[in-house]
Amino acid sequence: MKDVGFVGLGSMGAAMARNLSQAGFNLRVFNRTREKAEQLAAEHGVAVASKPSELGEAGRPVVTMLADDQALEQVVTGPGGLTEGASGIIHISMSTVSPEASRRMAEIHTRRGDRFVSAPVFGRPEAAAARKLWICTSGDLAAKAEVRPIIDALGQGVFDFGDDPGAANIAKLAGNFLIASAIEAMAETLAFGEKNGVERAGLMEMFSSTLFACPIYVNYGRQVVQQNYEKVGFALPLGLKDMQLVQSAAMAGRVPMPFAGIVRDRLLAAMAKGRGKLDWTALALGASEDAGLTPLTANR
Amino acid sequence: MKDVGFVGLGSMGAAMARNLSQAGFNLRVFNRTREKAEQLAAEHGVAVASKPSELGEAGRPVVTMLADDQALEQVVTGPGGLTEGASGIIHISMSTVSPEASRRMAEIHTRRGDRFVSAPVFGRPEAAAARKLWICTSGDLAAKAEVRPIIDALGQGVFDFGDDPGAANIAKLAGNFLIASAIEAMAETLAFGEKNGVERAGLMEMFSSTLFACPIYVNYGRQVVQQNYEKVGFALPLGLKDMQLVQSAAMAGRVPMPFAGIVRDRLLAAMAKGRGKLDWTALALGASEDAGLTPLTANR
Amino acid sequence: MKDVGFVGLGSMGAAMARNLSQAGFNLRVFNRTREKAEQLAAEHGVAVASKPSELGEAGRPVVTMLADDQALEQVVTGPGGLTEGASGIIHISMSTVSPEASRRMAEIHTRRGDRFVSAPVFGRPEAAAARKLWICTSGDLAAKAEVRPIIDALGQGVFDFGDDPGAANIAKLAGNFLIASAIEAMAETLAFGEKNGVERAGLMEMFSSTLFACPIYVNYGRQVVQQNYEKVGFALPLGLKDMQLVQSAAMAGRVPMPFAGIVRDRLLAAMAKGRGKLDWTALALGASEDAGLTPLTANR
Amino acid sequence: MKDVGFVGLGSMGAAMARNLSQAGFNLRVFNRTREKAEQLAAEHGVAVASKPSELGEAGRPVVTMLADDQALEQVVTGPGGLTEGASGIIHISMSTVSPEASRRMAEIHTRRGDRFVSAPVFGRPEAAAARKLWICTSGDLAAKAEVRPIIDALGQGVFDFGDDPGAANIAKLAGNFLIASAIEAMAETLAFGEKNGVERAGLMEMFSSTLFACPIYVNYGRQVVQQNYEKVGFALPLGLKDMQLVQSAAMAGRVPMPFAGIVRDRLLAAMAKGRGKLDWTALALGASEDAGLTPLTANR
Repeated sequence: MKDVGFVGLGSMGAAMARNLSQAGFNLRVFNRTREKAEQLAAEHGVAVASKPSELGEAGRPVVTMLADDQALEQVVTGPGGLTEGASGIIHISMSTVSPEASRRMAEIHTRRGDRFVSAPVFGRPEAAAARKLWICTSGDLAAKAEVRPIIDALGQGVFDFGDDPGAANIAKLAGNFLIASAIEAMAETLAFGEKNGVERAGLMEMFSSTLFACPIYVNYGRQVVQQNYEKVGFALPLGLKDMQLVQSAAMAGRVPMPFAGIVRDRLLAAMAKGRGKLDWTALALGASEDAGLTPLTANR
Repeated sequence: MKDVGFVGLGSMGAAMARNLSQAGFNLRVFNRTREKAEQLAAEHGVAVASKPSELGEAGRPVVTMLADDQALEQVVTGPGGLTEGASGIIHISMSTVSPEASRRMAEIHTRRGDRFVSAPVFGRPEAAAARKLWICTSGDLAAKAEVRPIIDALGQGVFDFGDDPGAANIAKLAGNFLIASAIEAMAETLAFGEKNGVERAGLMEMFSSTLFACPIYVNYGRQVVQQNYEKVGFALPLGLKDMQLVQSAAMAGRVPMPFAGIVRDRLLAAMAKGRGKLDWTALALGASEDAGLTPLTANR
Repeated sequence: MKDVGFVGLGSMGAAMARNLSQAGFNLRVFNRTREKAEQLAAEHGVAVASKPSELGEAGRPVVTMLADDQALEQVVTGPGGLTEGASGIIHISMSTVSPEASRRMAEIHTRRGDRFVSAPVFGRPEAAAARKLWICTSGDLAAKAEVRPIIDALGQGVFDFGDDPGAANIAKLAGNFLIASAIEAMAETLAFGEKNGVERAGLMEMFSSTLFACPIYVNYGRQVVQQNYEKVGFALPLGLKDMQLVQSAAMAGRVPMPFAGIVRDRLLAAMAKGRGKLDWTALALGASEDAGLTPLTANR
Repeated sequence: MKDVGFVGLGSMGAAMARNLSQAGFNLRVFNRTREKAEQLAAEHGVAVASKPSELGEAGRPVVTMLADDQALEQVVTGPGGLTEGASGIIHISMSTVSPEASRRMAEIHTRRGDRFVSAPVFGRPEAAAARKLWICTSGDLAAKAEVRPIIDALGQGVFDFGDDPGAANIAKLAGNFLIASAIEAMAETLAFGEKNGVERAGLMEMFSSTLFACPIYVNYGRQVVQQNYEKVGFALPLGLKDMQLVQSAAMAGRVPMPFAGIVRDRLLAAMAKGRGKLDWTALALGASEDAGLTPLTANR
């Protein structure tokens, strides 16, 4: 049975760690808030580390699933970080971070004899729990092959984007932008229908069962129809963070993206209106409000 | 065998007329350019009328499939138009026109004892030929029931939007807006990938086989990846016309739609650059050009 | 003393008619709501006509100052319109209308032996009262020379745009777009300052006394700082109408204008929120609201 | 005669240093490229330092005029930086930097007994040479009073924004955003005129001599009319940098700014098309190109 380190037990990470444990991996976990790690230990018999550096051992894979670039850097190079532990590890970085962060971490790890695999995921906590994540990978070829069983235990499919450690992050950000754009487009088209006498539910039902019969339009479409954004699969501030990462990479790559500007502004307006506790789909409230519609959740 | 009148034998209309004929309907057709009608007559033994008014007969359904509001009004109220023929017809208006045009036509028909069914369709000429259209209906309830066999002979599914003759047009416009937004979003995200080192094909392959595994992303996605817009399923000027109809209805309904403004501008820029002969998916060229990419078809 | 016909005694027209009367022109006026004409007659001794056609006389200038294309067409070709009166008139059309309307009217007048001068104005009612309008002209060269004393009695300066009767309207719309864009830009920049700790008044004071020391930034800037839009110089629905005219001409000329899309949407949102009674500068509320600021007038 | 340190002899800084020298200040300068400092020394007899730390002396004002946040941080805290020299200085930071950078620098200086005045400027190199800059100040009250003679020797007016060292930077960024928006608005309206038959020069002449008779519309308007952007008063990449600073501060303050998104994208597209050597006014090329117009300088 293979030993695996795991850092980051948020709603995504906890579900993923459980799956790895159930798939027979011998898990040792670290979480900033120790309680969450203890809870997992109690339930699944995994070992708890008191700092990331304790997870390292030559040849051992260490998965990280963290909130952002800063958290990732902290876990790698901060006090008690991975780079203070044994070298030779394979760091599987599954957080949604910037391509630059991935490239920097890859370089740092490579210099000390570790290997680095970038492996961000698509899917909400339910998908993580159900092993239904879609996973993008990039980075060291041999390392990717070696950690494949771990990746396979977490998701339903893998898409590889080559050697550049930042490439998988670009793919992930590209996808999140595509999702946010779909949400805004649905929000506008349903407001358009509603104000012109066509019910939201019927309109979306048609789209999501025909031309747009795919998970994003089916699932997010339901939320945008009902306009209830209180069940949080992906928190609005994280959505805003991702759209900032999109804009930074767009700036670096010199790619004007007008839709990205609009969805960023929708999320920013939602934050300004105190909606940081809602799901990021609440960006859809903007289109309704601009149309003079006052959805039930508008003031939340 | 049921008699059916049919007006408008463009690439959509001709395929639909063929299907009605093959489904056993006894067709009498009119087309402004008579040659197309003659050709259909030669192939399928349908009768050719020399003006729309000849198609009318009490109780007979007459399908119209025309380019725009003006063409529809001409066929209904112009010289030799339907309202100069026998009354009591059921006009099945399948063109993508404004909700106002539908409402006006419905009123005119109702006043003279006709009935009016609005039935715009989703699908390109290939879908029309394959009886794979998705059809939105609204208008007179009894008339809709009566013409259902005709509708069924043309498409793979029907979605009804109630009594208002304009409602089906709102639904159709809502859908075309949703499609145009998906095209622009794909265009931006693929330019984003390309300029950041991730190939267009691989990126789109991931999206269209997972989160966005639906006809619009699969089919239009392929075009946006390849950037070849010369095979015209739906001509760019018609796409621009539709986005104008969206904006007019958005104005009437007081619905600000920032994405609609952007896709309209993309189509307008494409017209300004002489791309009126391309498929409307060529709106995607804008995102590539703004990113300094010069696709092979850019100058067309 | 020269006879002049005058149609349209709204807040602009009434002020202009008064000035013509005071400048010594012998005025005969028509207004749809007759009371306004009677009032002017009582004050200034002008004659009142009961329909536009009564104003015509060969060689006589007739000024029109109306709300929109429809009103202009009604006055020219409707029942009792100018074209039912004596021919040979010089129609000075000072309303903000579409270039197409001007071209159509010019053609109609020319055909019956009239002449047509397009002469839309910049300035609010106070400027009209103070003879401080800026006037754009285009159309028949000789006619423009002939009516110059009338133009001069109304404004402080004239800019000519050649023979095309629509050209002056294009210039007028271009200007209104430029003003609306300045309002939105000020709204965004003052919200930006306010949320980042810099007071609105001090910021605008700097701009309007230095780099932007010109009437638009000084006058509209004051309104945007104070966020009180209840004193109506130019009503919001008229501003929306003008931005629609801008977009129509932009469509006809194939000119994508992203700023125009945004200001149109701001005005449309204001209408959707029930602000049709406010001054058009209230489009600035959008930027404040999106930033989570709740100006005193926000709910009006 | 007062001793003053000066760091940064780019096109702005060199002109400003000359003015201080001519105003009787005893200047000691540092520039990363020493030649520029030597040249100034040869012309004006100023002293040349070999690193910023040599400029410090208790009570002495040190002006910095640098490209961006990074350059400023380097001069303050880098090797040989101001904080390695004598303490007690008054750092007058006149660069266009982020409010955060100003706040960080103020804190660092305060901690070691220096004082910090933020004093960014409006004006191009010609204005700097002519002592026609407009200067925004914020920061330590007593320090601002003390350095006022220096400020006065550089500009034609001062606007103060209080104690927060970042406030003057917010005001400066707000102004640059307002300028960029004016450029885009002019670009759109002139393309609108041109494609609708109204000459660019005549249209702009009207605006800049009436409603918009102020420096920004007069000066930038001339450039946008002529579409020649090769004479560089403010380089395009610096404009893009500033719009990024605007967006960062807008993000921090939670202020959606749709116009800011558009001008950023215009500048980004210009960079993507290889126009980094042009003046930032070249952002106006975007509107012309989207309208299918091919200005003479379009390919540069």
